[in-house]
Amino acid sequence: MEINELAAAGKRRPGFYAMVGWLKALQGKFNTKVVKVVKGTIKLGRDDPRRVIHSLKVALALTLVSLLYYWRALFDGFGVAGIWAVLTVVVVFEFTVGATLSKSLNRGFATLLAGALGVGAQHLASLFGEKGEPIVLGIFVFLLGFVCNITFSRFFPRIKARYDYGVLIFILTFSMVTISGYRVEELLEMAHERLLTIIIGGGTCMIISVFLCPVWAGEDLHKLIASNIEKLANCLEGFGGEYFQQPKDGNCGMVPKNEDSFLQGYKSVLNSKTTEESLANFAAWEPGHGRFKFRHPWNQYLKIGALARQCAYQIETLNGHINSKVQVPPEFLQIIQDSCRTMSIETGKALKALAIAIKTMKEPKHACEHLEKSKTAVKDLKTALKAASLENADILAIVPAAAVASILVEIVKVVEPTVSPEKPQLLHRGSVNPVLLDGESPML
Amino acid sequence: MEINELAAAGKRRPGFYAMVGWLKALQGKFNTKVVKVVKGTIKLGRDDPRRVIHSLKVALALTLVSLLYYWRALFDGFGVAGIWAVLTVVVVFEFTVGATLSKSLNRGFATLLAGALGVGAQHLASLFGEKGEPIVLGIFVFLLGFVCNITFSRFFPRIKARYDYGVLIFILTFSMVTISGYRVEELLEMAHERLLTIIIGGGTCMIISVFLCPVWAGEDLHKLIASNIEKLANCLEGFGGEYFQQPKDGNCGMVPKNEDSFLQGYKSVLNSKTTEESLANFAAWEPGHGRFKFRHPWNQYLKIGALARQCAYQIETLNGHINSKVQVPPEFLQIIQDSCRTMSIETGKALKALAIAIKTMKEPKHACEHLEKSKTAVKDLKTALKAASLENADILAIVPAAAVASILVEIVKVVEPTVSPEKPQLLHRGSVNPVLLDGESPML
Repeated sequence: MEINELAAAGKRRPGFYAMVGWLKALQGKFNTKVVKVVKGTIKLGRDDPRRVIHSLKVALALTLVSLLYYWRALFDGFGVAGIWAVLTVVVVFEFTVGATLSKSLNRGFATLLAGALGVGAQHLASLFGEKGEPIVLGIFVFLLGFVCNITFSRFFPRIKARYDYGVLIFILTFSMVTISGYRVEELLEMAHERLLTIIIGGGTCMIISVFLCPVWAGEDLHKLIASNIEKLANCLEGFGGEYFQQPKDGNCGMVPKNEDSFLQGYKSVLNSKTTEESLANFAAWEPGHGRFKFRHPWNQYLKIGALARQCAYQIETLNGHINSKVQVPPEFLQIIQDSCRTMSIETGKALKALAIAIKTMKEPKHACEHLEKSKTAVKDLKTALKAASLENADILAIVPAAAVASILVEIVKVVEPTVSPEKPQLLHRGSVNPVLLDGESPML
Repeated sequence: MEINELAAAGKRRPGFYAMVGWLKALQGKFNTKVVKVVKGTIKLGRDDPRRVIHSLKVALALTLVSLLYYWRALFDGFGVAGIWAVLTVVVVFEFTVGATLSKSLNRGFATLLAGALGVGAQHLASLFGEKGEPIVLGIFVFLLGFVCNITFSRFFPRIKARYDYGVLIFILTFSMVTISGYRVEELLEMAHERLLTIIIGGGTCMIISVFLCPVWAGEDLHKLIASNIEKLANCLEGFGGEYFQQPKDGNCGMVPKNEDSFLQGYKSVLNSKTTEESLANFAAWEPGHGRFKFRHPWNQYLKIGALARQCAYQIETLNGHINSKVQVPPEFLQIIQDSCRTMSIETGKALKALAIAIKTMKEPKHACEHLEKSKTAVKDLKTALKAASLENADILAIVPAAAVASILVEIVKVVEPTVSPEKPQLLHRGSVNPVLLDGESPML
């Protein structure tokens, strides 16, 4: 009945009817959105509880520093400057301990330094009299803004990543102090109060992030590198098992299922550089934790990561080849099959052993064994190819298989410096040998 | 004489002598540092004047907003809140127009929204009486901090990148307003003043960045993609010319100089993903400029970029093979030489034509011609390989060359969707066909 009425109303006023429908659709949409978010939150809590805990930690820190305001005893001490503690918490609290420490310490020291410099500049400018002061202050602000921007953006790119935030806060505080100084009477007292509240805000963040379910950037980097190597290992092992399987029902065994997830896992390794670099940057700020001492050689992880990426590029090319539906002549397949399978599987096993060794921080003894086996397979392949003769073979059909073999040999070459006996030192602190990054890789 | 005296003093007090030496060394070090920085600045001005101009622009904006403070007429209007304009400039002014607009607008709207919400929350909390108010406010701050963090960090990862800064400022302003509201009498007036100064600060940044030697993120993205494709083209052309050159003095022509810069240019393409994504994100904030309308399909550039990276991975593998010092049997080289050279050079030319077409925003007609030629070369290679017979050939020596040929064919496959006739639409606004990203690439 109601609907009929609405419909009747709709006939008279089509715009009204359309709007009712639109509102209903909107409400339905909103409801599904809310349900989706709530369901998502529950799922998130199961999948990645660290994110939920992080949000709780931020909220806790915010509530704690706002006590500065609510408690009269504290408010009387700090006054309105207490708001700077809130600001510091919102801006400084990051997901990992390293990022939080980096931002807190950068903010604290930059404020201290720039505050002192600002007070000095203000004092200097006041010597120029009533009229000269704003002009001199303006020149100071202009110069500092220019010099800081130019020096740090270009000349020290490595320092920049680590102290970027500090430089920003330095310019900010210097400008604020010198400019405020022109109007505010008790400049020193204001600067002192502000610094203190920033220390309180930053300190709260640091303490909560270090002691309450800490998320260590260093540990994340460690796990990321190990899991990346493991992905490559899975991919190579799976490839060896699928691509060079024993021919069944007359099939040459060259038809892998490309949808297999293990053959896709390496894709995330291709673009992991940025993540690795930022984690390594933050890890350098962290104190010793768990199995990692302070000043653990985090940069070595970047080198291993670069090698892993090198390997992933080769697998990407390999992946292009295994999509092929071409029939490899059985006589050629027989020549390369065994050694290629061994190369692929053993290299995969070596990488897996390396991943486990990184995880457990032990010597990767098994990795070397597996690598030796795959190196032997490379030699076997060479011998087999030397001895073979392909009088009536279809060369066209051989080429892709030859390419696969050749790329596999390249992969063994890339994996070698990663696994070789000098590398385990990565896991221990102390003298770390440089990793052969662009070592020659003479071919098959 | 003086040195002798110092030396004598040094004999008596070795610590003193060492210190003098140390101080001298330090002074020398400092001098060289200063000279280095000054020289570097001059060089930078020549190499990348945009950086220098950017620093000048930041300094100018800072100086302009500090006028809010220095001019009495303006100061009387804004009071101490003027300092928020300075803060806004330092935090918001970025290198590209898009980044500056994104941060300014995010900051402005987030402040407005959070301010209104905060005043509402404050009013609501005041209904709970003297004792209840801080508790209710604390709960509000806790809830908002938690919900904002969780919702945006996970459920809308794509939105996150674009509005990340806005969410931060939203939490910040809401916390500050609700918390300040507990102590500050004229909350509305304060919020109003602050919003106004933020608008002035953000507006100054936006105007300066748009009208004073603007650096457009969109244009940078456009140029980056074109130059990346050009690098790949140079690499392929150079490879074709060097690797498959006519044999001179009995040499098989398989000894390219790996140090050649054109063979290394592609390396920067491998890791360009992050840069491309952030440029595309900022470009979306920019108004129409030059040849680009507002809402230019920037995301299409990302797809082209992904294809270029795909191609770079293949070249990386190719690069591993051309380090080889192995002698390819002349009879096999003869079979593949011509078609491989054509594939490599013509694909390179097609990519170069595409890069030029992107730069000039015209139809890449020549690209299709070159692509056709390289596809014909693929067919020629197949025919040649089918017809060939290698009775006495050394298969071991053939394998790497076969791999090179096979990878080259793959590269032609990868380049095809980039160049094919549907793609030029990227350059025009309007209906853009989806780019085949993970298209099948059946093998040779």
